[in-house]
Amino acid sequence: MNSKQLDPRLSTSDPALDEHTVSSETVFSGHFLKVRRDVARMPDGRTATREHILHPGAVMIVPLLDDGRVVLERQYRYPLQRVFLEFPAGKIDAGEAMQVCGERELYEETGYRAREWVRLGAINNAIGYCDEVIEIWLARGLEQSGARQLDEHEHLEVVTATLDELLGWIRSGEVTDVKTIIGAYWAELFLAGRWTAPA
Amino acid sequence: MNSKQLDPRLSTSDPALDEHTVSSETVFSGHFLKVRRDVARMPDGRTATREHILHPGAVMIVPLLDDGRVVLERQYRYPLQRVFLEFPAGKIDAGEAMQVCGERELYEETGYRAREWVRLGAINNAIGYCDEVIEIWLARGLEQSGARQLDEHEHLEVVTATLDELLGWIRSGEVTDVKTIIGAYWAELFLAGRWTAPA
Repeated sequence: MNSKQLDPRLSTSDPALDEHTVSSETVFSGHFLKVRRDVARMPDGRTATREHILHPGAVMIVPLLDDGRVVLERQYRYPLQRVFLEFPAGKIDAGEAMQVCGERELYEETGYRAREWVRLGAINNAIGYCDEVIEIWLARGLEQSGARQLDEHEHLEVVTATLDELLGWIRSGEVTDVKTIIGAYWAELFLAGRWTAPA
Repeated sequence: MNSKQLDPRLSTSDPALDEHTVSSETVFSGHFLKVRRDVARMPDGRTATREHILHPGAVMIVPLLDDGRVVLERQYRYPLQRVFLEFPAGKIDAGEAMQVCGERELYEETGYRAREWVRLGAINNAIGYCDEVIEIWLARGLEQSGARQLDEHEHLEVVTATLDELLGWIRSGEVTDVKTIIGAYWAELFLAGRWTAPA
């Protein structure tokens, strides 16, 4: 990431833009969501309220079968009241390494174990109101154990598709989940030899 | 979207996966975030708590200059405590049409007006906990008015880059915002004649 120092467009800190925390309080703490309300000092010296969600981060897996198909899940996503087609993913447990989380989630949700793990990168999916980071890993050399261990209240169906089918469903607007879209594009680039994991 | 009816992998409703709302209450209502806690009946008949955020939806613009560069913004994103490089975007006002929202946000944040608007598609960025939909539009035939009208407490810097530069920054892990990543890929496909807006 050397260009980060060289190209001012990529600078992640800037006195004309940076905000500084004055105070912070937890205003909602539920089973899953934790909301904080901070007072922040703006670059112009005034203060503003910043509400945001704390998230532990997640790992998404692009599970690639030996025949070129990928493993996907159909899962009901309550906030949008419909079933989504998406790659397996799950939240990181406290202190858990990324790859370990990926191995655990892939096994729990699909029953697959993988021989090879390749980190493709990381994305931020809701920068306006949540600190979530989703790590994207490709898993190859898959073996089906026949077992899976879903969390309580987790219902999902495991299906497979070719990468071309998935890319077609993104074009037709039938797959709209951001992590799955980006995972499909990065897997395509990786398999074409045009992707190396960022630092 | 005919294949949606034909291919069971794309079905958005499934008795084995669907959840049904039993009750719903607003548990946090802030300046920006509204959190609901629902009780939902699972496919197995048991109930579970579902916390989720209500979002009005957003429009993101890929502003394409006549010389092939794109217009981007540098903006401090408080939840992640750093400056991000991203395409212009903003929340939809109640009752506002998508393209009108895009025109308004582009003008307010960058001062640009566009002659041509092309809808590229829509994405869901946080399906586990938020109903947000982000519409992605390409804007061409840009003219700079010299004026912009930032919201209160909105500080941002407008910069430009070639699409190749942006795609390189995605590869190097320096651009991580999901909407900007997907907008860059769709704009690249659109300019190559390999993208038509989904229905």
